Amino acid sequence: MKSKGLFIVISGPSGVGKGTIIERLRKILPDVRKSVSVTTREPREGERDGQHYYFRTLTEYQQMIADGQFLETAEVYTNFYGTPKDILFKQLKDGHDVIGELDTLGARQVKKSYPESVRIYVLPPNLDELERRLKARGTEDEDGLKRRIGAARRELDEYRTYNYVVFNDDPEKAAERIAKIVEAERCAVARNQDIIKGLLR
Amino acid sequence: MKSKGLFIVISGPSGVGKGTIIERLRKILPDVRKSVSVTTREPREGERDGQHYYFRTLTEYQQMIADGQFLETAEVYTNFYGTPKDILFKQLKDGHDVIGELDTLGARQVKKSYPESVRIYVLPPNLDELERRLKARGTEDEDGLKRRIGAARRELDEYRTYNYVVFNDDPEKAAERIAKIVEAERCAVARNQDIIKGLLR
Repeated sequence: MKSKGLFIVISGPSGVGKGTIIERLRKILPDVRKSVSVTTREPREGERDGQHYYFRTLTEYQQMIADGQFLETAEVYTNFYGTPKDILFKQLKDGHDVIGELDTLGARQVKKSYPESVRIYVLPPNLDELERRLKARGTEDEDGLKRRIGAARRELDEYRTYNYVVFNDDPEKAAERIAKIVEAERCAVARNQDIIKGLLR
Repeated sequence: MKSKGLFIVISGPSGVGKGTIIERLRKILPDVRKSVSVTTREPREGERDGQHYYFRTLTEYQQMIADGQFLETAEVYTNFYGTPKDILFKQLKDGHDVIGELDTLGARQVKKSYPESVRIYVLPPNLDELERRLKARGTEDEDGLKRRIGAARRELDEYRTYNYVVFNDDPEKAAERIAKIVEAERCAVARNQDIIKGLLR
């Protein structure tokens, strides 16, 4: 019997290294697919529709909201981003695990609309380390840095939205921990009831 | 900050291979300790008090029950077996993971008295396979076999007592799965609240 796939949500403060971790995770678990979001923002150089994002006009996007087509949707700096239900649910039903990088607002919506999702929050070993990483990026001025650290602190307070926290002391180790969480979740009783009932017949 | 250890409960029908799996698991995670039960049965050749069991008289055992010293206790063929709270809780508090092999009755008591335990049910790939393994042991006659299969079927119906099911298609793989469950559980938000709160201070 083919089990339903897992929807794995990864969140974490800006600068914590989510991108690198997801990249490594997909090397450990190559069958895990990346969730493709719908967005109203303009495609950047090299971005392809259906691969990086589904690019839609604001009117199309608003229609999708009206039709209840999003698992979660958010406006970020005048652009909209959302996870389309139909595509995701089809993949999960076919037994594929899907990973989505979402902010805490998105994760909170997913917790509500799809509680069987596996929600993981990536944490820096400490907040000083986060500040150091953000500085090293060099994309923020002093004010921007303070804002991001403040946001990280507020976000951390949302940890109850998540099932797991993974410390990113090392991206490879963090990816391995997430891979173990994925494999453990596949053994969760709640996800194996049909198989158990099948055994009992 | 040192995290509290996990109490890992392993159950499964007789003949499913729990002993081999636990042995292999302890090679993968050598720091995991085995829970030592208290029993009223006579020590067998080579068994040492405090290592294989804590051997106690029936009077001593009944006093321990009266004093509420057991996390779970059961009578099996006129002998008593139980998990002593004080020793276990001390180990968990010191950050050691402890594994205990319990029957479904014991697991049910543990779920109630220590819900943060990680309860894992080991399943055969199918019931025919279980019958085959029990036959291969050669320790049961036809009636005994039927009884054991019937018991396995009834036990399976108790799967809600557990957090995870692990199929023993191969003992090494089953042990690896349990090791992953242990490592995933260490990342559970509920087990990391103090660390997260520490980060926020």
